[in-house]
Amino acid sequence: MAPLQNDRLLRALLREPVDMTPVWVMRQAGRYLPEYNATRKRAGSFISLMKSPSMAAEVTLQPLDRYRLDAAIVFSDILTIPDAMGLGLYFAEGEGPRFERPLRDAAAIEALRLPDPDRDLRYVLDAVAECRRGLAGRVPLIGFSGSPFTLACYMIEGGGSDDFARVKQLMYGDPALMHRLLDLNARAVATYLDAQIEAGAQAVMLFDTWGGMLAAERYQAFSLAYLQQVVSSIRREADGRRVPVIVFTKGGGIWLESIAGIGADAVGIDWTVDIAQARRRVGGQVALQGNMDPMVMLTRPDVIRDEVARILEGFGPGTGHVFNLGHGITRFTPPEHMSVLVDSVHELSQAMHARG
Amino acid sequence: MAPLQNDRLLRALLREPVDMTPVWVMRQAGRYLPEYNATRKRAGSFISLMKSPSMAAEVTLQPLDRYRLDAAIVFSDILTIPDAMGLGLYFAEGEGPRFERPLRDAAAIEALRLPDPDRDLRYVLDAVAECRRGLAGRVPLIGFSGSPFTLACYMIEGGGSDDFARVKQLMYGDPALMHRLLDLNARAVATYLDAQIEAGAQAVMLFDTWGGMLAAERYQAFSLAYLQQVVSSIRREADGRRVPVIVFTKGGGIWLESIAGIGADAVGIDWTVDIAQARRRVGGQVALQGNMDPMVMLTRPDVIRDEVARILEGFGPGTGHVFNLGHGITRFTPPEHMSVLVDSVHELSQAMHARG
Repeated sequence: MAPLQNDRLLRALLREPVDMTPVWVMRQAGRYLPEYNATRKRAGSFISLMKSPSMAAEVTLQPLDRYRLDAAIVFSDILTIPDAMGLGLYFAEGEGPRFERPLRDAAAIEALRLPDPDRDLRYVLDAVAECRRGLAGRVPLIGFSGSPFTLACYMIEGGGSDDFARVKQLMYGDPALMHRLLDLNARAVATYLDAQIEAGAQAVMLFDTWGGMLAAERYQAFSLAYLQQVVSSIRREADGRRVPVIVFTKGGGIWLESIAGIGADAVGIDWTVDIAQARRRVGGQVALQGNMDPMVMLTRPDVIRDEVARILEGFGPGTGHVFNLGHGITRFTPPEHMSVLVDSVHELSQAMHARG
Repeated sequence: MAPLQNDRLLRALLREPVDMTPVWVMRQAGRYLPEYNATRKRAGSFISLMKSPSMAAEVTLQPLDRYRLDAAIVFSDILTIPDAMGLGLYFAEGEGPRFERPLRDAAAIEALRLPDPDRDLRYVLDAVAECRRGLAGRVPLIGFSGSPFTLACYMIEGGGSDDFARVKQLMYGDPALMHRLLDLNARAVATYLDAQIEAGAQAVMLFDTWGGMLAAERYQAFSLAYLQQVVSSIRREADGRRVPVIVFTKGGGIWLESIAGIGADAVGIDWTVDIAQARRRVGGQVALQGNMDPMVMLTRPDVIRDEVARILEGFGPGTGHVFNLGHGITRFTPPEHMSVLVDSVHELSQAMHARG
């Protein structure tokens, strides 16, 4: 493998000094980019694009060719594991992910088996390897998965939901069965992330998209406990270098202290969190990743730059901050606004790191 | 007016001693009740029901006839003010509230005028008066409005939204114009709540349904500041008795200390907040209202009772707690589960208040 030329991301995640604050963006390979849309059209569907290692690698690298981003994230989906378990992932146009065979009774849950990543998720591992070759050491590559709880949400509901009535009825009504499902998911996620690291991922991220809709103590028991199980069981080193783990519970800002305590290297925060307060609350235990409102990207260059400045100043001097949005970039973002974001983060943070 | 026979709600909101923890439920007059559905059918639509003072009063009282609830809340909608401003409120089946004439440019915002509640919202004031007569002092009557920011969300988007892209573009791109709209809304809300109090409301609540999707410092500037403007300008006494004000920002648990500081008597909390921690965080500054996950109501009597016990014990001994759900009750709740909730709150809290 080519040696890493830009390791700002890995250094900031491990709270080592950096020359500038690193920046990448959730869904940076996505529909706001015309070249992404062209490849997706060629693939025929999101699923075909995701399941083709060469096309997945192609779109992964597209934003790196346009912008001075400090990381690539393999193009994939958070729900590959339930798909590998046989639930049948598909995307209804404009509706987000759905499963053909959601878990509708205890028997369906009990019948689930751990997928073997080398066999059942080969296409992801091949995409990871192909991304690494294509990057040739330019920036590190991030692998990822949905969190055990978020997988369970989609597996039970069969798709997104306003109220997660089915998930919550199972959780409140038969907690033991819910725990068995979550334990299986946690083992599957850990094995899968290990395989991505083995294939070349240099950092990994757990997306807990729906943990934030849980009652406080249920979040601890049904989401955070399984994030911890994953974090504590995956390998944390590859090629003699530490592989940082990022956990991100959307809407989890209220529980930040607990999230910071599960052994991850970094915690993602959404825009509802004041980053200055967040830094005080985690007290140097973890790095922070975030947290600009993606809607700022729809406005104007001067507004974007001011918001970048506000967030950088909020975090303050010193390392331990990876700049990102607080959620995926929207498809309506003008592509030139991404340059404004990336360049503003680099320019405005340089003086801070020189001082700090 | 008949003297008030059960003033537990008012006492708990003002942190005065009570014999049992009072309980009411958001949307307690709603679609889970067959008698509500019968009246709504007779009315022809939600809008006709809401705009008929006699039918609105009828459904307001229905849950009081079934359950030992400690409060009634006038049947209405959070969006009556923009409707009175001429935006044309309607409800698309299964889609929530929408406006026929959303605010799509600066001219539309500048053209808005303050409604006169006595003329433009007479139907609400008549419903309040009719509810008071129908209640005949059984329990206090709560009046309400959407918060200035939440009104602005619907006025600009024309309905609900996943990302509130239009609202946020206005807020980030032209903050001065957004502030003018919010100031107008705050003055309209204050005048409207005053008129409801004049007509007979014995407590009032501000529903900030969408404040929780704001970035931390924007919440302070664009939602909380206008909640404070309303709270500090409305009358706080009627018939020689204090009229408590409750503010509720859904998803605002992370900002609880700030919300508790704007001068309201009580703060609503959703289920993502641990109520024991919330009590410590507000430090006796306000009462708390909440915070059971409405999905618990879909399970079983034993689960509901256990959850009630957990929340009552979480709050702990002493007054200052009004039991409620963390969001509106869902239409799929079995009506008999509401008795379980109400009776569990009363039974399980009695011993605590005798001790405390």
